Amino acid sequence: MPNFIFRHALLPDGWHENVRLSVEGGVIARIEAGVPGGAGIALPGMPNLHSHAFQRAMAGHAERRGPSGRDSFWTWRELMYRLALNLSPEDMEIAATQAFIEMLEGGFTAVAEFHYLHHAPDGAPYADIGEMAARLAAAAAAAGIELLLLPVFYAHAGFGGAAPLPEQRRFINTLESYARLHERCAAQAPTGVAPHSLRAATPPELEALTALAGARPLHIHIAEQTAEVEACLAWTGQRPVAWLLDHAPVGRNWCLVHATHVTPEEAAGMAASGAVAGLCPITEANLGDGIFPAAQFSGAWGIGSDSNVLIDAGRELQMLEYSQRLARRGRNMMAATAAGLYNAAAAGGAQALGLAGGLAVGASASFVTLAGDDPETALAQAVFCARAPAVRDVWVRGRQVVADGWHPLASAARARFDDMVNRLV
Amino acid sequence: MPNFIFRHALLPDGWHENVRLSVEGGVIARIEAGVPGGAGIALPGMPNLHSHAFQRAMAGHAERRGPSGRDSFWTWRELMYRLALNLSPEDMEIAATQAFIEMLEGGFTAVAEFHYLHHAPDGAPYADIGEMAARLAAAAAAAGIELLLLPVFYAHAGFGGAAPLPEQRRFINTLESYARLHERCAAQAPTGVAPHSLRAATPPELEALTALAGARPLHIHIAEQTAEVEACLAWTGQRPVAWLLDHAPVGRNWCLVHATHVTPEEAAGMAASGAVAGLCPITEANLGDGIFPAAQFSGAWGIGSDSNVLIDAGRELQMLEYSQRLARRGRNMMAATAAGLYNAAAAGGAQALGLAGGLAVGASASFVTLAGDDPETALAQAVFCARAPAVRDVWVRGRQVVADGWHPLASAARARFDDMVNRLV
Repeated sequence: MPNFIFRHALLPDGWHENVRLSVEGGVIARIEAGVPGGAGIALPGMPNLHSHAFQRAMAGHAERRGPSGRDSFWTWRELMYRLALNLSPEDMEIAATQAFIEMLEGGFTAVAEFHYLHHAPDGAPYADIGEMAARLAAAAAAAGIELLLLPVFYAHAGFGGAAPLPEQRRFINTLESYARLHERCAAQAPTGVAPHSLRAATPPELEALTALAGARPLHIHIAEQTAEVEACLAWTGQRPVAWLLDHAPVGRNWCLVHATHVTPEEAAGMAASGAVAGLCPITEANLGDGIFPAAQFSGAWGIGSDSNVLIDAGRELQMLEYSQRLARRGRNMMAATAAGLYNAAAAGGAQALGLAGGLAVGASASFVTLAGDDPETALAQAVFCARAPAVRDVWVRGRQVVADGWHPLASAARARFDDMVNRLV
Repeated sequence: MPNFIFRHALLPDGWHENVRLSVEGGVIARIEAGVPGGAGIALPGMPNLHSHAFQRAMAGHAERRGPSGRDSFWTWRELMYRLALNLSPEDMEIAATQAFIEMLEGGFTAVAEFHYLHHAPDGAPYADIGEMAARLAAAAAAAGIELLLLPVFYAHAGFGGAAPLPEQRRFINTLESYARLHERCAAQAPTGVAPHSLRAATPPELEALTALAGARPLHIHIAEQTAEVEACLAWTGQRPVAWLLDHAPVGRNWCLVHATHVTPEEAAGMAASGAVAGLCPITEANLGDGIFPAAQFSGAWGIGSDSNVLIDAGRELQMLEYSQRLARRGRNMMAATAAGLYNAAAAGGAQALGLAGGLAVGASASFVTLAGDDPETALAQAVFCARAPAVRDVWVRGRQVVADGWHPLASAARARFDDMVNRLV
């Protein structure tokens, strides 16, 4: 049974010294303290609870105003649609490989891929309706990251079952085609269910998807933009999170992605439901979404790299904590220590991915290391002070995938990725 | 005459191709376009308009709540005072050398050092009252960064001329001792004048300091914290910026550092005065200060690394832009392009340091390079997407100080710095 001895390890109840982790079949089988001879600082690998891998190809190409002189989330979305319409399955695999390698180098050891680019450019399903999902699974296998596939159900352009737009044709399914897609995804990797949003799925569709999910992870975009809140109010008389909590069996297997615009009552309802708040701090800042009241939220939460404009677990935590500090004018808002901040995100992320979380018996043997002698200071510096990702070595399910900050495929993947971006963006 | 040819260069009016910069005596003597054979992308070096170099030693040591369970700017300040009371002149030089090297690697080619740690630990002046300033100048010379010394005048613990606190004894001067200190600083490096804040200098003292400054840079902390705004209102009946604009000859040589809490009228007054808003986005987020209305501000502004919790010009610009996006729920808030964002900060920073700014004839031959073919995208990626500082090569006044991201003294300086932090923090 392979085992690892660390000078310091962040277990769910805090820092421990001289910790031995024994691994069996990719899972932590035993944890012992008081075992000397170890080096370094071990943290649980961070689950990335929300990614659109292909958007990595857009990074840096949308940070300028459009011809109108104005800009918003919605003009960003237009660019994203242009890219989405031109991506081949090969391109998808190249972009996802690049994104997943960067995730590992940035401390993410598992990813929930919220995957909505299903069909051929003309909108017809590929011969295998799961072609694109298979490319994502191949990229995850090549990079060595643990994958949760979240095939997205997208059927409408707005509340009230509006017909989809032509530029959404690669995303669109009926419930029937979605069931086939879901089956093909499940043949590739652990698979959840993902109604895109309350805009894109009608109430009866949402009910059917909830039934399909059963106890599996169910993720949904919600309340990211004020325009969406207003449209939901106009259509239902309720705000999105309030509507969802009233009309769906939201529970511990749900992840409400963004949930940026919530009232205190909605936040309390989310916490009571047991669902995970899926926070994407860097993307939410990049898109100008607004600030989720995370420091006042008593429920589970985790972090996602979403648009992948910049991929680093430490910087997601930094942006989250800083947005709370700026909004509330205090310090150390999310937790008393960096260990508390990190463990909360690791636990919520694992819950959202349907994994046993943290460095605990029965959890995936996925962990990352930091250099340093004082573990709390090293982690605080990794989150708040590092000029580059501070993660040194990374293991996923007992297999080392990053050594001294470098993934062995990084250079080759980057060359293919740059070539693809030059062709498409 | 040494010259440099770049494929792309960011001049004050935007991107130009095939640009030759000719350098004479450390200054740009001539700029020509249409000169083939160049490579890379050149940007003006970014001036860092506000630094407390020694605080680099605290980075990562204050990101946890105090024993009371609460935390704020003011508990952070207690930690800073503890460090300040224990630092020797040698320690100051070690910390500043580390900070200045990181500045160069992060794209800052000049720094305004807001220097308040003047005296021996018992509060008595050193035999040379400028001993600590000389250490800062030695560190700047070793690192190769252009320095503006801003010896800080600090005489009181609060509005109304309150007696200083015992833990402030190393900062304290009378106008008479400050004049001697200023003279010693000016013997080391270009020197401005820096009343610490409206708390620390009485109105007559501020008047005397303004006279001493003449046309030289005059920097002052202002309106960083709401508690400070309230204390100023209680004492003067006016908010800090309003009071300052009414009672001091604020003009183009002034830099109002932070100015976080301003009314629209105060912001308009600042802009009309010609002063530079000295924004320190990462530190202001770290300390939970709040958000300056930068996107609505029509005046000059620049960026400072302040507490040096993390030193990187690109990330200061990112944090600034993201704070505006979060507060205002839009994108590309500060400028239409990354070039516009960068040039605004470079111009405002140069003004604050009393330098000719940008890549222009007569300015310091201080520039940095990025890799890439499309300059606008490369710069946007340097600001928004880079996992580590994107700056490759750095020249200060015509002399190369960083090659391929590395300063030649980085390793040796870091070893001395780590040893010092282990001793003191």
